[in-house]
Amino acid sequence: MKPKDSQRLDSDKCISRLSAVEDALYVIGGKWKLRIIIALMEGPKRFNELQRTVKGISAKVLSSELKMLEINGFVTREVYTGSPVAVEYQLTDYSSTLHKVLDELVKWGNMHREKVKEQWKEKEATP
Amino acid sequence: MKPKDSQRLDSDKCISRLSAVEDALYVIGGKWKLRIIIALMEGPKRFNELQRTVKGISAKVLSSELKMLEINGFVTREVYTGSPVAVEYQLTDYSSTLHKVLDELVKWGNMHREKVKEQWKEKEATP
Repeated sequence: MKPKDSQRLDSDKCISRLSAVEDALYVIGGKWKLRIIIALMEGPKRFNELQRTVKGISAKVLSSELKMLEINGFVTREVYTGSPVAVEYQLTDYSSTLHKVLDELVKWGNMHREKVKEQWKEKEATP
Repeated sequence: MKPKDSQRLDSDKCISRLSAVEDALYVIGGKWKLRIIIALMEGPKRFNELQRTVKGISAKVLSSELKMLEINGFVTREVYTGSPVAVEYQLTDYSSTLHKVLDELVKWGNMHREKVKEQWKEKEATP
């Protein structure tokens, strides 16, 4: 199964796409950042709420990922003084530049899951 | 800077998107897989060629990433017997299901790089 030759990239285009994807993954790559952003699309959340929504993330990792997301302009941290002090995280306008990337990733993830399920069914059906 | 409330997700949609992105990142996440796929969009490549194109990847990591890409149906490994034996890697048709994800990621990476450059210029211009 070869991809059609018409879909091939020339060397320059390949290098330029590699560098763009490298730049993108530098800030939004890794296991957690996009998941944290999606979790915050529901609305502003406190640290513990966020940790419950993004299943499997440790407090230490969540804290460091949030700092990186803040530095890169995706998230702001709001401190409400009072007793107890409340800290909420929320998305910036800039985070919405990621909508199309996320939409395509969600579509692809759903499509891929269905494909894997089909393959399992076929395997089970084979005597 | 808050995202518009109309862009907010309800809880169910948020959970379903989280799970789709989790499924996607499970197979194409990490630092290298998408870069290897882009590098192979130029056409089939030998291992050493691939390592030269995907700058910074070690032979050990490239080898294990290629194995995962093969298992998940994105890449095939072709062995040409002869002297010396040649091994080439190439993309499958299934890898082209990633085109839209990659296109959006490339667009976003380019946009983000320009934004970061602008910010640097502004900082330099500030006395």
